[in-house]
Amino acid sequence: MNLDKCCIHTITTKPWSLSEAVDHYAAAGVKGVSVWQNAVENSTHHQAGELIRSHGLDVVSYVRGGFFPHTSTSERAKAIEHNKKLVEETAALGAPLIVLVCGATPGQSLETSRQQIRDGIEAVLPLAEELNVKLAIEPLHPMYAADRSAINTLGQANDMAEAIGSAHVGVAVDVYHLWWDGALETEIARCGANGNLLAYHVCDWKVNTLDMLNDRGLMGEGCIDLKRIGSWVEKAGFDGYHEVEIFSDIYWKMDQSEFLYKVTQAFKAHV
Amino acid sequence: MNLDKCCIHTITTKPWSLSEAVDHYAAAGVKGVSVWQNAVENSTHHQAGELIRSHGLDVVSYVRGGFFPHTSTSERAKAIEHNKKLVEETAALGAPLIVLVCGATPGQSLETSRQQIRDGIEAVLPLAEELNVKLAIEPLHPMYAADRSAINTLGQANDMAEAIGSAHVGVAVDVYHLWWDGALETEIARCGANGNLLAYHVCDWKVNTLDMLNDRGLMGEGCIDLKRIGSWVEKAGFDGYHEVEIFSDIYWKMDQSEFLYKVTQAFKAHV
Repeated sequence: MNLDKCCIHTITTKPWSLSEAVDHYAAAGVKGVSVWQNAVENSTHHQAGELIRSHGLDVVSYVRGGFFPHTSTSERAKAIEHNKKLVEETAALGAPLIVLVCGATPGQSLETSRQQIRDGIEAVLPLAEELNVKLAIEPLHPMYAADRSAINTLGQANDMAEAIGSAHVGVAVDVYHLWWDGALETEIARCGANGNLLAYHVCDWKVNTLDMLNDRGLMGEGCIDLKRIGSWVEKAGFDGYHEVEIFSDIYWKMDQSEFLYKVTQAFKAHV
Repeated sequence: MNLDKCCIHTITTKPWSLSEAVDHYAAAGVKGVSVWQNAVENSTHHQAGELIRSHGLDVVSYVRGGFFPHTSTSERAKAIEHNKKLVEETAALGAPLIVLVCGATPGQSLETSRQQIRDGIEAVLPLAEELNVKLAIEPLHPMYAADRSAINTLGQANDMAEAIGSAHVGVAVDVYHLWWDGALETEIARCGANGNLLAYHVCDWKVNTLDMLNDRGLMGEGCIDLKRIGSWVEKAGFDGYHEVEIFSDIYWKMDQSEFLYKVTQAFKAHV
């Protein structure tokens, strides 16, 4: 795949400031940027969006809201207020959507957490609709079910998006979280068919993963059949960006220009 | 729960020899032992079984066979021969079943690996039937899908056991692998109803897991609601042992007598 649909998450090149990232991405022929919160530290969100657009790049998404479940009512209310602020930031950035890492809380059942996630999304939704910001539920790998997300399959994310039933709520498909799921093809078709497939994230699963959070692989370096999953996403009618999102202690230690070159080469070869 | 249904996997107290483990388990009031291959090094399998029974303990299972998928035909044939040897060892030990960690191979799809798993089980089955050894398909957590098991949900294990359709093939339910699955209650009921629920393994999932293999928690130390899952297993008609299987670099470093005390206390409090 050429780079016309290539977007990079700023976290992928974490050592770079937003300004450095944008300069390098544009020079490399990348076309979109997904902005992590930590990348917007020295400017307003509006300025950050302008900076990105001034380099001819699209602002693809803002990452990330969510973390709705808490055992205490006041903590849940705080999470909702925080997410409203994030939706405002998404709009100020000029991003069409915010990715939701929905949350989970040890000590309560995953069903209870899922109900609190739904309540949280529905509380934030009126503002999201008003500001025309979409909320993308991202199912996370089951290894994060303890405290990061009670939504661990695309089936569960689709169920929730459909139950909420707003044009401003959909799902984000990340191969790292979902590649193992026997129902993945079917569930991708399902969210594609009803307009809920909002985002597609790529990286790879290293066979010998050293760290549960920060050892994602570059595309082609692991066991995920990206071309196959990509064909399902395409068949489902998705024509948005393929977003590279790699957390890696190993790659963050590299010279980031060299790493970016590897990213673009891997994108062309494997996505 | 008292210790009448308490079984311990020898790997849980890895620093102990089988003889030490059996002495300590019996003295602690534990009633069953699941024997890992590495525990039978200095005796025949028949002798190991006799040793266990002479302490008034039941031999609950032999751990573990499987690893059927390989890209090369000759490797797959070797895996089948190896599993036949393991079935013979299970019979010699006097264990009613062997647990299968089914395997997966990077570079081929999970569907292909599952087909090779089924072919492998069916090739071993005649001998298992002849020796009256049951084969328990253990679904492994999706974080092991790259190279340890292409069977990652109880639904997939149930599908395969039912497709093979032998009284000598069933499933092993391990809470560590399955606790996150929204379909778990239904799938436990399913394998209970058709006689395929052969084994039940307990431990806990630590919220901050440090290692993907060897950082399992003691029951009560993590986020798994063991009493709830235990009630599903009981409701499904299972009345076998609750098998403690903990791999932990942390606990293996402890004095194993102290650790065994913790295990029995945690079993009484949380299982």
